[in-house]
Amino acid sequence: MAASTSEPRFNQRHLLDMSSLDAEEITTILDLADRFFEISERPIKKVPTLRGQTVVNLFMEPSTRTRISFEVAEKRLSADTINFSASTSSTKKGETLLDTVKNLEAMSPQILVMRHSEPGAAHFVAKRVNAAVVNAGDGAHAHPTQALLDCATIRKVKGKIKGLEIAIVGDIDHSRVARSDIIALRKLGANVRVAGPKTMIPPGLAELTGATVCHKLGEAVEGADVVMMLRIQAERQGGACLFPSTREYSRTFGLDSDVLSMSKDDAIVMHPGPMNRGVEITPEVADGPRSVILYQVTYGVAVRMAVLYLLAGKPPVE
Amino acid sequence: MAASTSEPRFNQRHLLDMSSLDAEEITTILDLADRFFEISERPIKKVPTLRGQTVVNLFMEPSTRTRISFEVAEKRLSADTINFSASTSSTKKGETLLDTVKNLEAMSPQILVMRHSEPGAAHFVAKRVNAAVVNAGDGAHAHPTQALLDCATIRKVKGKIKGLEIAIVGDIDHSRVARSDIIALRKLGANVRVAGPKTMIPPGLAELTGATVCHKLGEAVEGADVVMMLRIQAERQGGACLFPSTREYSRTFGLDSDVLSMSKDDAIVMHPGPMNRGVEITPEVADGPRSVILYQVTYGVAVRMAVLYLLAGKPPVE
Amino acid sequence: MAASTSEPRFNQRHLLDMSSLDAEEITTILDLADRFFEISERPIKKVPTLRGQTVVNLFMEPSTRTRISFEVAEKRLSADTINFSASTSSTKKGETLLDTVKNLEAMSPQILVMRHSEPGAAHFVAKRVNAAVVNAGDGAHAHPTQALLDCATIRKVKGKIKGLEIAIVGDIDHSRVARSDIIALRKLGANVRVAGPKTMIPPGLAELTGATVCHKLGEAVEGADVVMMLRIQAERQGGACLFPSTREYSRTFGLDSDVLSMSKDDAIVMHPGPMNRGVEITPEVADGPRSVILYQVTYGVAVRMAVLYLLAGKPPVE
Repeated sequence: MAASTSEPRFNQRHLLDMSSLDAEEITTILDLADRFFEISERPIKKVPTLRGQTVVNLFMEPSTRTRISFEVAEKRLSADTINFSASTSSTKKGETLLDTVKNLEAMSPQILVMRHSEPGAAHFVAKRVNAAVVNAGDGAHAHPTQALLDCATIRKVKGKIKGLEIAIVGDIDHSRVARSDIIALRKLGANVRVAGPKTMIPPGLAELTGATVCHKLGEAVEGADVVMMLRIQAERQGGACLFPSTREYSRTFGLDSDVLSMSKDDAIVMHPGPMNRGVEITPEVADGPRSVILYQVTYGVAVRMAVLYLLAGKPPVE
Repeated sequence: MAASTSEPRFNQRHLLDMSSLDAEEITTILDLADRFFEISERPIKKVPTLRGQTVVNLFMEPSTRTRISFEVAEKRLSADTINFSASTSSTKKGETLLDTVKNLEAMSPQILVMRHSEPGAAHFVAKRVNAAVVNAGDGAHAHPTQALLDCATIRKVKGKIKGLEIAIVGDIDHSRVARSDIIALRKLGANVRVAGPKTMIPPGLAELTGATVCHKLGEAVEGADVVMMLRIQAERQGGACLFPSTREYSRTFGLDSDVLSMSKDDAIVMHPGPMNRGVEITPEVADGPRSVILYQVTYGVAVRMAVLYLLAGKPPVE
Repeated sequence: MAASTSEPRFNQRHLLDMSSLDAEEITTILDLADRFFEISERPIKKVPTLRGQTVVNLFMEPSTRTRISFEVAEKRLSADTINFSASTSSTKKGETLLDTVKNLEAMSPQILVMRHSEPGAAHFVAKRVNAAVVNAGDGAHAHPTQALLDCATIRKVKGKIKGLEIAIVGDIDHSRVARSDIIALRKLGANVRVAGPKTMIPPGLAELTGATVCHKLGEAVEGADVVMMLRIQAERQGGACLFPSTREYSRTFGLDSDVLSMSKDDAIVMHPGPMNRGVEITPEVADGPRSVILYQVTYGVAVRMAVLYLLAGKPPVE
């Protein structure tokens, strides 16, 4: 697979959020991800695309799976990877984010993958550097590679996305995954229903995104092709008590076999991980025949390879 | 050195403990380690065996030397290495070990090297994944690559293992190193004597392993070909006071030149590290002409290269 | 660029401090750094110099930029890099520095890059190992690659170093950067003026180094070709109160546009980073047209490539 700067229909220098991409660009990424997915099944899982290039993974917020997924993707593209995490960083010495980033950029990385607790951090940085920036999560705002891997998984398993009924369940308001998924799925023509406690549904969501808001779990799951459960992220709720208890949450918005039986016969179950087993999803469902949760992880590597590949093909703007 | 799936006499998909290997399989590893040892002395210390393969080092317990030894071994085999340590992990978010491992496996690593505080953790994981699993230490249970590097060192320096008198001294009960060493050395025909405070010798050891239990240090060291000192690991004793004080321990079970003089004239001194100088071993002995402690470290890389090489040659079971 | 063991005029096995190098050796490094600087601007930023070699980065003190700069340099030379930081180390288990280093050395690294809080740590280690040692900072003593990158930057921008008037401002006494810079710049024929609070100027500095000591900032900056600001490092002052407050410090020794206007018209501003914006330097100056601060970072990678390249060419002494 030869790198090409004339790759059709991907005119982005950065990957910051799903709003910036049109349906055709998303499809370009998904098509390419399918090809990289196959590479992960080969004995030699490596292509020379990013040989001699440096990719910096700047994670200012704890992460495991996303950082490792990017690192695997980068190494399979033959990049030299540099990991920089907040816990070992100059930020402890009071350096600003921009100074940290400008310093990293002065070492000539081709691509900067960054996670930060502040919404808009990746956009802020992207405007100020020549390196391509990939947003690996900025607060509750966006997590575009998660949305892309979810789309890639759905398209692969269901054969299409257009016209599917997709339920997204949980803390919609604090979830960058939900936000990015809703935008991406709507662009690709899916019907999205969201469900969760009222305190966790952002006001105006239906108007803004065209998603259908359900206040009961059954309503969202009924007849769905895809049921996507979100992680309850206590760490993002700022201490406020948005639901009575995990037991209460589990009883009203947790997915078990009974609820799942309301969906279509061939419906699939998704979760971005890490799962709280017994809270938002029962082990029976998480490990059941409808679950494509680990398939999502495999597509995570493939989608990130696709994104890095496409961004590497763009010459830096002077 | 070309990889071969028909490598004779190594029929393991994983390396979990020394009990699972027979003498011929151990010898296969030691022979191969001797060849990799030579590669570490070349100007270019690298072979392409694992090119395009991902190896994940999953260390759920603090470690330096073992993790680095594996990482060096993996890189000399041209693998892409991914380090995952507990301190930066999803386990903080409450994910189960199996979910963590399944997620890593979904990224298609060829080999998973894991250390965990729970005895049996590597076995538990190995039954549930397609990747080859190398146990890099599971609680007080097993540490097979340490036993293999000890065997490789002894065989190289003494020319054989069969018939040697080998003293292992220290906290036998809490030591995965001792456990794995005793099993391996017995399989290769050595006579093993253990010594340590009564509270640190597991009941039934002599019956189970054929080792001779000594309650005085001199008894074990007298006429020995090899004296292997163990680290006193306060962190593994669960707070219980198993010996009066380090000074008392040092006086009764610490190795100094006087005690060492009771061994054979050409006896060698070993220690798995990190050493407590002045507690289980005096600096004079640790740095003396009989010490092969650093040679053990060098063989550590070679043995791990051999193990990874052999496991990489096995196709995953479906 | 082919590796050569007969590289003229660099007869060092280690890089420990600037005192050990003569002007010709420094110039050899700077010349080579200029060539590596160009490699960082190529599409493929990699040369095979250290292929099959292991470089260990042993950082016993927190660091980001220096560790990452070395790691980038090592990877661009195709080395296998191993990162070892104190927070995950055996040193927690009470191992001595020398045992840690001897263990790492037994894994056959070609080069050991080390940072340690103790002055003289790198010298201590260098005397006891066969690997080449690069001092990446030892307490308040030396930081030779920082001095070299500062020299490389100045020479590139100003076209020469000899005869330039260079002001170094801040906590001279506690700064390994200042110490190494003064020695290097004097060897290359620059005139060095230092300025800072009296408590931060080591007694006898003028006599020892030939630098001119100024007690007012304006005195040092007046007519200077280069103004190098140091970071105020509260962490190195041992709790003692060496200046009244950061506001007071900023007022008397902080660089702003007014003060800078006293320097030559084409003077440049440098800072080793990380900056305390608003303390030792105003944002206006840090981001202004005279600032070469990010250029220093880029030269950091090139200089480290040059040093590693030169040391790798030396066969280990037996």
